[in-house]
Amino acid sequence: PGMNELTEAPESFCCHWLIKLQPLLFPLRKLTPFTSNFPDRSFGFLEDGTFKQRYLTSDVYWHKPGESMPFGQASYSDSKHLNYLTSEQALADFAILIKNVKSTLPGAQHSPVISIGGSYGGMLSAWFRMKYPNIVVGALAASAPIWQFPGMVPCGAFYKTVTQDFAKSGYNCEVNIRKSWSAINNISSSASGLVWLSEEFSLCGPLKNKNDVGSFKNWLQETWVNLAMVDYPYEANFLQPLPRWPIQAVCKYLTMDSTVSDKLLLQGVAQAAKVYYNYTGSTSCLNISQTATGNLGILGWFYQSCTEMVMPMCTDGVGDMFEPEEWNFQAFSDECNAMFGVRPRADWAEVVYGGKDISAHSNIIFSNGGLDPWSAGGVTHNISESLVSIMIPDGAHHLDLRYSNKHDPPTVRAARTLELMYFKEWIRQAKRPHRSHSHYRL
Amino acid sequence: PGMNELTEAPESFCCHWLIKLQPLLFPLRKLTPFTSNFPDRSFGFLEDGTFKQRYLTSDVYWHKPGESMPFGQASYSDSKHLNYLTSEQALADFAILIKNVKSTLPGAQHSPVISIGGSYGGMLSAWFRMKYPNIVVGALAASAPIWQFPGMVPCGAFYKTVTQDFAKSGYNCEVNIRKSWSAINNISSSASGLVWLSEEFSLCGPLKNKNDVGSFKNWLQETWVNLAMVDYPYEANFLQPLPRWPIQAVCKYLTMDSTVSDKLLLQGVAQAAKVYYNYTGSTSCLNISQTATGNLGILGWFYQSCTEMVMPMCTDGVGDMFEPEEWNFQAFSDECNAMFGVRPRADWAEVVYGGKDISAHSNIIFSNGGLDPWSAGGVTHNISESLVSIMIPDGAHHLDLRYSNKHDPPTVRAARTLELMYFKEWIRQAKRPHRSHSHYRL
Repeated sequence: PGMNELTEAPESFCCHWLIKLQPLLFPLRKLTPFTSNFPDRSFGFLEDGTFKQRYLTSDVYWHKPGESMPFGQASYSDSKHLNYLTSEQALADFAILIKNVKSTLPGAQHSPVISIGGSYGGMLSAWFRMKYPNIVVGALAASAPIWQFPGMVPCGAFYKTVTQDFAKSGYNCEVNIRKSWSAINNISSSASGLVWLSEEFSLCGPLKNKNDVGSFKNWLQETWVNLAMVDYPYEANFLQPLPRWPIQAVCKYLTMDSTVSDKLLLQGVAQAAKVYYNYTGSTSCLNISQTATGNLGILGWFYQSCTEMVMPMCTDGVGDMFEPEEWNFQAFSDECNAMFGVRPRADWAEVVYGGKDISAHSNIIFSNGGLDPWSAGGVTHNISESLVSIMIPDGAHHLDLRYSNKHDPPTVRAARTLELMYFKEWIRQAKRPHRSHSHYRL
Repeated sequence: PGMNELTEAPESFCCHWLIKLQPLLFPLRKLTPFTSNFPDRSFGFLEDGTFKQRYLTSDVYWHKPGESMPFGQASYSDSKHLNYLTSEQALADFAILIKNVKSTLPGAQHSPVISIGGSYGGMLSAWFRMKYPNIVVGALAASAPIWQFPGMVPCGAFYKTVTQDFAKSGYNCEVNIRKSWSAINNISSSASGLVWLSEEFSLCGPLKNKNDVGSFKNWLQETWVNLAMVDYPYEANFLQPLPRWPIQAVCKYLTMDSTVSDKLLLQGVAQAAKVYYNYTGSTSCLNISQTATGNLGILGWFYQSCTEMVMPMCTDGVGDMFEPEEWNFQAFSDECNAMFGVRPRADWAEVVYGGKDISAHSNIIFSNGGLDPWSAGGVTHNISESLVSIMIPDGAHHLDLRYSNKHDPPTVRAARTLELMYFKEWIRQAKRPHRSHSHYRL
């Protein structure tokens, strides 16, 4: 547990990130509570409220989530409060934080800072370097889908990657999952089938109608997606406690050939799902309203995807193993409006963060895992000499940011080595005095 | 008047700017009213209001100020409305505008755009390239005092430049202005002196007390500053209608030697002030509550200097020709609080726009005039090969952005040539396909 707890720090798959200050220059320190000026009212000056922004100068002792809540318990309560939950505001808060750390921590004044983040935190990390190159000399953006926005990548690429992970993890695995949807439709068409399904999957609440079956299928789909994200080469506990290479463990129950009956197929699917939901054996029933344990700030992420972070996704059941579903922005927008009273701005992320046109920036590493569905929206080729891509073919979601492990494949070890090489180069650059240039005097 | 009106378009010395789209690609067009999505609530998503943002695709027919008022007449009415008056919001509005123009103007989709601005507009122009390099391929920042913020340049540099302009424009000119303050103090100490002063300066409202005398001196000081800003080599009408080289015209009345009496000195000062306020001969009296004609959005600028744009200034009466006055942030902040109910954030501009640390950016020309006091806070040396300074020694405030004139000195002609050279290079770069880079596959 001691070390395990640290390894399993609840980093979120979407909503938290961590500025790791240059470790050579900063001694390891405990949690330091800290109050920074909060550029509140979204950069307005009318109100001057501040909030306590907790930050970490090292994650060695980190074993609980950050507690930077601008309005405390009310932060997620309604859209008035959620209105401040924007990436621009987050970047500005980081800038203020780092300025403050550098001006108050003895010896840190001239220390180059590198931002590091994974997933949404990886996007923030990249964007932070883009917008505040005066604050950070470079950024590692791990598994950061900065191109998962409208018009940048095909909407089906995400689910294709999920499908490929299953296809290569066991015989017939993705074929059987593709078949499972119609099997569910068949079985659930009768009342007795609904009971059978609910019992077979040990659901906490039985399925009662077509609506419930829809939710059940969404929950299963999300389960497979999550497995793709956390398909790590060792036991881990990111979204759920899981065995090493969890998709292989799941696929062991999905090797049936084409003659399998609906019921036998779904018994296999149920066993597979329980690998994800009950690896520890301590789960008494499966709750289809959640797919991850712990507080990952998922409500906050919903809100952000309903505002700035519009990420088109679609399936066709051919290139992927899911029921066909087109991307429908209008329906999505209507859902957002119903849930939060806001409508997404589909093009905003491209305008503010550049979309495919980011070549004017520098010193950003985009690392991506080949198993990670988010790599589909990531930067997987070099853009310039200092905007570089590092691919980790057998890595899942930001594997490179996890603690090192004896089961780490050579590719992730090499990625970390290369990342450190870039970090050192950026720090070297930052410490080199600038060449002086004469001006044109007319 | 036809051509004159155009030449004298009311560009503001602080508060307006103009995106000049690449003229080779955009045919000259008339004013085009246009409504863009206004990313209102300062990037929040709760309210979705829009306002009509008028823009120009060419300034050939431009003879009135822009009318982009987010809340119409109420835009400047109180701090609730003024809360949206931030540079960040302005930059975002420009980004949306340009995206919209490019997607709606036939043939413009792939046209590189260059931002051009002078003064505060020059700062916005530079910052726009820094924050939105995906939207503009480069920026001309003319007379943009991006370093006139706390801790970046000495607070006295601005007024020293003003003083130098007067010192080199006529014998004893700055000496007599330096002496004038005590002469005013002496004369205004008696009731009859107040009457004499008011009459000599043809003031619209007579000076009544010490307070009035303070305002009077501030007004005179601002007059000399404005003259330094608009010390153009030809007749012009930026802040006021003025003769060519107006400081030389002013200094003709200020050549008295050291034995001059207070009254004779102040008679000269009054004549000098009238060069500025009554060059046309049509002014019946001088109003000490204003130093420029026309609507230059000065209230907006006051608000911005009370929030983000904190620009320390000071005088010592030795290196400059003004009464000594230290920079007092607290007093300034209190004034702001009394006027608008907001307090400035002294360090914000540095955090968000990088201060002296802007070398990560590219493709910005900083042009400055040697006569312009704002050059004291400008970038007057090259920072890198693509962050370049162009000095125009005999230029006043963004002379390079004015229409060409037969009296233009060779230095400003050369500056414009050089600026165009850079523009062409940026456009060439933008049209060149990016080198492809292979990624590191581990």
